[in-house]
Amino acid sequence: MKNVFGGIEAGGTKFVCVIANGPEEILFEERFPTTTPTETIQKSISFFEKHIKEDHLNLLSLGIGTFGPIDLHPTSGTYGIITSTPKPGWAYADIVKPFQKAFHIPIAFDTDVNAAAIGEGVWGVAQGLENFLYFTIGTGVGGGAIINGKPLHGLVHPEMGHIRLSQNTLIDAYPGKCPFHGTCFEGLTAGPAIEDRWGKAAFLLSQDHPAWDLEADYIAQAMSNFICTLSPQKIILGGGVMQQIHLFPLIRKKTLTYLNGYVQSASMLENIDNFIVPPGLGNQAGMLGAIAMAKNLVE
Amino acid sequence: MKNVFGGIEAGGTKFVCVIANGPEEILFEERFPTTTPTETIQKSISFFEKHIKEDHLNLLSLGIGTFGPIDLHPTSGTYGIITSTPKPGWAYADIVKPFQKAFHIPIAFDTDVNAAAIGEGVWGVAQGLENFLYFTIGTGVGGGAIINGKPLHGLVHPEMGHIRLSQNTLIDAYPGKCPFHGTCFEGLTAGPAIEDRWGKAAFLLSQDHPAWDLEADYIAQAMSNFICTLSPQKIILGGGVMQQIHLFPLIRKKTLTYLNGYVQSASMLENIDNFIVPPGLGNQAGMLGAIAMAKNLVE
Repeated sequence: MKNVFGGIEAGGTKFVCVIANGPEEILFEERFPTTTPTETIQKSISFFEKHIKEDHLNLLSLGIGTFGPIDLHPTSGTYGIITSTPKPGWAYADIVKPFQKAFHIPIAFDTDVNAAAIGEGVWGVAQGLENFLYFTIGTGVGGGAIINGKPLHGLVHPEMGHIRLSQNTLIDAYPGKCPFHGTCFEGLTAGPAIEDRWGKAAFLLSQDHPAWDLEADYIAQAMSNFICTLSPQKIILGGGVMQQIHLFPLIRKKTLTYLNGYVQSASMLENIDNFIVPPGLGNQAGMLGAIAMAKNLVE
Repeated sequence: MKNVFGGIEAGGTKFVCVIANGPEEILFEERFPTTTPTETIQKSISFFEKHIKEDHLNLLSLGIGTFGPIDLHPTSGTYGIITSTPKPGWAYADIVKPFQKAFHIPIAFDTDVNAAAIGEGVWGVAQGLENFLYFTIGTGVGGGAIINGKPLHGLVHPEMGHIRLSQNTLIDAYPGKCPFHGTCFEGLTAGPAIEDRWGKAAFLLSQDHPAWDLEADYIAQAMSNFICTLSPQKIILGGGVMQQIHLFPLIRKKTLTYLNGYVQSASMLENIDNFIVPPGLGNQAGMLGAIAMAKNLVE
């Protein structure tokens, strides 16, 4: 029997289940659409059960990084559930307990973005760093933070996509896509906001479309706020929108313009290309982060 | 010989030196204006030397909470100095070494706002909390954070007064007082901004002056951003502007309006009066925080 770890990247659109020991040893991986909690969780359980049996595996522990909001407090009566999500059927869905029942192994549970941050810290571009941020900018915007070597949870967990940004309405009068906050970070920059503002899906807009300068400007403003608030050693930007690699140089330049020399650090000012970066693990950051969380539990 | 701890709250306007064992046992305290580094640091050293000698004290350790920006990294060649401050004479002033030379005791060093946060965690309104924020809103705006029980430093240290806020220029077209960022949190809400905008010092404005609603609105917007970013269990607001106690109910209400039900936590939503609060240690938070830092070093 081979010792292995399980990981689940539970997204609002799709679930990714993986059996691995690290990025160099990904044994099995399966993705399926997020339907009802019962069906999606059952499919995930079946994936692990099948491989445990057929491939003679010893699943040591499981890591789950999920969309939220979620209850992360182990002493809470609702630990391990997705709480007040607007996603139909998923409000108050218990996501940890079904796996505990099925496998009787230690289970780590965190937000999808904290999981991705953990993955980047263990195997990606943030190895050796104690303080860094991971953002996904895609169908939504979320942020995870590692502070003093540990994921930031706090009262609930951060919702970094929902900070309010300053909008120059003479240049951009778009009212924002967030149903809660209108022109917050997510409301101004997520994929659906781009599509809604310009009448075309983001990936269909050419590189010289004015959408990208505006997009980079808002993202840079958010980054400058997060630098002032959290003083990270590195910021990793992932997610569908950030597949537009040409955004990176724009965001870096504009972030420094927003900071305007106030935060004095050579490792940021003289090394901005290594300060705001794409994920080292690409789109595997989330699922490998879940594996890293599982490994952390037992090692 | 009596065992005691030393604390310094090093502000841009005044230094507060204190010898104490806690809030119930403050033995000696002296305040003097911040002039040149040489003169001000020498006065501080003399205060401790005098009492050590005359009152037969054994000074076990010293805590310094200071205005900044500062270098907090023990392995850095410039550890213990104030770095790029615009304050005349203080740029690159070494603030730790003179005390090391004079007393040969352990010295703890942090920002003034982290010191105040530490003080509130040990003796004030944040006892037992692992994640909380302390802000001073006065001649400037600064924020300190305790995350997972430890002060947040990161790359440099937070500069929470400099996040950019959204301004409705139809209501308030004030260009902001911050020389770096114009309308950042500090540029819109610090004492000098209030005086500049309304032509009168903040403490001369009556409680029904429209200044306060606007002030509370910007502070609430900042608080909502910090809640989304850091997910604190409590936020403490101190400093000269926050002496206007009537601001608190306004800020609490507007913060909930900005969050608009997005962050679901009963301990915030149903208990906002205990969530955004004045310092439990009043204007002694900084100096007692320095004492707490000194105690932490040796206990």
